[in-house]
Amino acid sequence: MAKVDSTTVPFRLVIHGGAGAIDRESVSAQSEQEYRDALTAALVAGRDILAGHGSAMDAVVATVQILEDCPLFNAGRGAVFNADGKNELDAAIMDGRTLAAGAVAGVTKIKNPITAARLVLAESKQVMLAGEGAERFAALKGAVMVSPDYFFTEQRSADFLRVKHLEELADSVGDHSPEVDPDRIAGTVGAVALDMHGDLAAGTSTGGITNKRFGRIGDSPIIGAGTYADNEGCAVSATGKGEFFIRVVAAHELSALIKYRHISITEGAELVIEKIANLGGQGGLIAVDRAGRFAMTFNSIGMYRGTIGADGNPETAIFR
Amino acid sequence: MAKVDSTTVPFRLVIHGGAGAIDRESVSAQSEQEYRDALTAALVAGRDILAGHGSAMDAVVATVQILEDCPLFNAGRGAVFNADGKNELDAAIMDGRTLAAGAVAGVTKIKNPITAARLVLAESKQVMLAGEGAERFAALKGAVMVSPDYFFTEQRSADFLRVKHLEELADSVGDHSPEVDPDRIAGTVGAVALDMHGDLAAGTSTGGITNKRFGRIGDSPIIGAGTYADNEGCAVSATGKGEFFIRVVAAHELSALIKYRHISITEGAELVIEKIANLGGQGGLIAVDRAGRFAMTFNSIGMYRGTIGADGNPETAIFR
Repeated sequence: MAKVDSTTVPFRLVIHGGAGAIDRESVSAQSEQEYRDALTAALVAGRDILAGHGSAMDAVVATVQILEDCPLFNAGRGAVFNADGKNELDAAIMDGRTLAAGAVAGVTKIKNPITAARLVLAESKQVMLAGEGAERFAALKGAVMVSPDYFFTEQRSADFLRVKHLEELADSVGDHSPEVDPDRIAGTVGAVALDMHGDLAAGTSTGGITNKRFGRIGDSPIIGAGTYADNEGCAVSATGKGEFFIRVVAAHELSALIKYRHISITEGAELVIEKIANLGGQGGLIAVDRAGRFAMTFNSIGMYRGTIGADGNPETAIFR
Repeated sequence: MAKVDSTTVPFRLVIHGGAGAIDRESVSAQSEQEYRDALTAALVAGRDILAGHGSAMDAVVATVQILEDCPLFNAGRGAVFNADGKNELDAAIMDGRTLAAGAVAGVTKIKNPITAARLVLAESKQVMLAGEGAERFAALKGAVMVSPDYFFTEQRSADFLRVKHLEELADSVGDHSPEVDPDRIAGTVGAVALDMHGDLAAGTSTGGITNKRFGRIGDSPIIGAGTYADNEGCAVSATGKGEFFIRVVAAHELSALIKYRHISITEGAELVIEKIANLGGQGGLIAVDRAGRFAMTFNSIGMYRGTIGADGNPETAIFR
């Protein structure tokens, strides 16, 4: 692909804060404002990097880091509790220019998993590190480590106890993999960016699903499923019922559709979400291509989302 | 896609036992015969299932299980040692008819990881389970559990001590992620099958890389990277330097190339391996589509491989 002149590409940043059963009735005006403010702060931080000729990679890391630090979202601080009452975090990042990628899964002591994912990308020959091994690597490379209780929030703790109770009830009537609370899937965060050099990047960070069991790994840290970036296709970050995104390799599928079928990013995003819906899955994704075209597509009730471009004005939305 | 009459599809099974620096000089006639015998035994077992109208899924599990049980290959018994001197195993399986998938990563006590992957597929709503959680799930669902020393073999232990020594030497001269021994990447096993009902399946099982560190997860258990099956595309199992297969989402990339660019499976397989080579990676893959066309493609010196079709005669090969 021809080198794009660095002064001619208008940048674009798109973010999400998770898709799920988010409807107007369940979100107060005050809560809506808090979410919009958080999304706006992330967009503005990313914009400042991109407008200053920074890289898509830097913008994605900075943006996701802000969303991780915000307790409203299910990533970093504010992550949901797994079945053992712990916050287990996953993150991935990918550079569309080099196809370099990094991911961490099941970590409990790294303040910003997205920065650990970037350390894996930049400073190891591996792509995916899990559990304590990932933590040892991140600590060795200088990631900010915290006590696991840093991730504790009253809200998530209450959610956990409620879901645990509902699932135990469901278990007691014989359903061993209940899906009692669609709301518990919301909150993964992600960002995709096109920088002024014409390069793409994608990043995703999550706390997974409330009351998750058995060392479950969702789509977020899986390159191809929840996160993918290829300058020749597009950059994608997904959110939703991760298992369906893994089965259709959602992020890579969208990039492949654009590359090989030459359809628009909107049409491609709709096809991927349709494929997930056909399997019974729910969720959404954000994507941007090298021309700055972007999509924010979902089949859930709502998706926290936002975008900002060269005009510098952040746009945010939650409902349809 | 139209339903294919179950009596009209000639079945096809393709297997691999890993790609790597396997050349004629380093393999004795006796060793070559042992590998060919092991590959043949696996092919014959799979053939018997497929010829009896069994499913591609059953054939893949049975075939991979035989390769796992054989200490010659780096999967199940015979798995290589990680940096802590443990055998840490990964496996994945996917059903091309339903896009159902299951995977386990970093398990140390499951005799046949491929059967645990199938249990995840069949009996959980998750796709990927890791570590102790995966072991708890597999045990709960009746998988055969073994003591970690079941996986110990003298050969792999000697390999481990040799590689560890070489990597410590490399570390001491300042290279912290050395790649001193290309041979240590060989040995992952996999199978892809087309059954007489016209359905595809793919499975992969591995012990990873000798002296691997930091909870590294390779491509084998990642749906899309090392393992993928879609009746509308093809079934794929990969082997080699896993990180490169993750970055190009190799298995799903091949399926997408066939589905969206309508190229032949041989041409598609060559394109994927070329993409991996361009990034500096090495390895190979096997694939079969719904018409029974298949590929066994690699850019390493050799790949343990074999295939069998409706004529019932097993064919095996190791070198170019």
